[in-house]
Amino acid sequence: MQYIPAFSKLVEEFEKLPGIGSKSAQKMAYYIITSDKSVAKSFSDALLDAKQKIHCCRICQNITDKDICSLCADEKRDKSVICVVEKPSDIDAVERTRDYNGMYHVLHGLISPMNDVGPDDVKLSELLVRVSENDVREIIMATSPNVEGQATAMYIAKLLKPFDVKVTGLALGIPVGGSLEYSDSITLARAIENRREI
Amino acid sequence: MQYIPAFSKLVEEFEKLPGIGSKSAQKMAYYIITSDKSVAKSFSDALLDAKQKIHCCRICQNITDKDICSLCADEKRDKSVICVVEKPSDIDAVERTRDYNGMYHVLHGLISPMNDVGPDDVKLSELLVRVSENDVREIIMATSPNVEGQATAMYIAKLLKPFDVKVTGLALGIPVGGSLEYSDSITLARAIENRREI
Repeated sequence: MQYIPAFSKLVEEFEKLPGIGSKSAQKMAYYIITSDKSVAKSFSDALLDAKQKIHCCRICQNITDKDICSLCADEKRDKSVICVVEKPSDIDAVERTRDYNGMYHVLHGLISPMNDVGPDDVKLSELLVRVSENDVREIIMATSPNVEGQATAMYIAKLLKPFDVKVTGLALGIPVGGSLEYSDSITLARAIENRREI
Repeated sequence: MQYIPAFSKLVEEFEKLPGIGSKSAQKMAYYIITSDKSVAKSFSDALLDAKQKIHCCRICQNITDKDICSLCADEKRDKSVICVVEKPSDIDAVERTRDYNGMYHVLHGLISPMNDVGPDDVKLSELLVRVSENDVREIIMATSPNVEGQATAMYIAKLLKPFDVKVTGLALGIPVGGSLEYSDSITLARAIENRREI
């Protein structure tokens, strides 16, 4: 790559994006340089505008450009169930099921001592306040089924013990449409363990 | 995806980048929103800065932040050979070979009547001026070996007929390390046609 400081800086910024390697970053930087001036301007404006207008919902910590997000503001949703997720995009995944009508709580991270992320680094105290101040019947821990996700779910379940609230986790098993032959053995063991009557 | 205008606009901007689909664009937008304010600011600055400082080299139309690019300014390079490429990143590919020491000319596009790109839409007149005003011995047409690339090479070769200049094209054949068994038949036919004594 030819060394032009402003170009290298732009490539560097693209490389910071999730899933972007140096080759893709160069391609994107060339695209910006060889496009019309308005492309860079509108991109730059969108970045600053989004960052300035969007913040966390006062209640559930989901992203929003209002004081409380559209999900918390929706009167038709069941306020007695809270689904706890790691990040805002996980809400989209749950909403896509069209099968859940409760509230959410976004932790913005998972507890991970290995990566120096403790309970105070995620939005946990906000969840405890919600549970203590409102009439919450159930907390669904929908963190990912990996080490950090499970540890975080366990930790939160323990913290919620003193409250009169049911804490549940997502079912683990073979995916719909999946094949038994190609299932990994841990997942299959869980599916057998959690088998249900039909 | 939750509808927040500033967020949707940001996703839209990411989607414009080459090779980015809606899923990746959402991921990147979420990354910007959940990162520190400085991330968006420095990204935005890099975009505007690059677009403001970088322009085309007066001579070869390569990108540069000076009046003429570092390759044109290099006194050690052979001024009598010009390698014609489609876009600035193609120069990187040729330079990586460490096997070429001549000049370049960037067309910024390929002639393509199907896509409404005519000879006046690429930096062709600048090439003709260079050839007529300087002592150029050879033009290497290094456009990609696809329909537009070949058509552009043919068109330019025809335009250069009146000048006392040799016009060459890159050799087509099976790639080094490639396998005969898996070569496509058009490439293999070209490799046989252009066979050389060893």
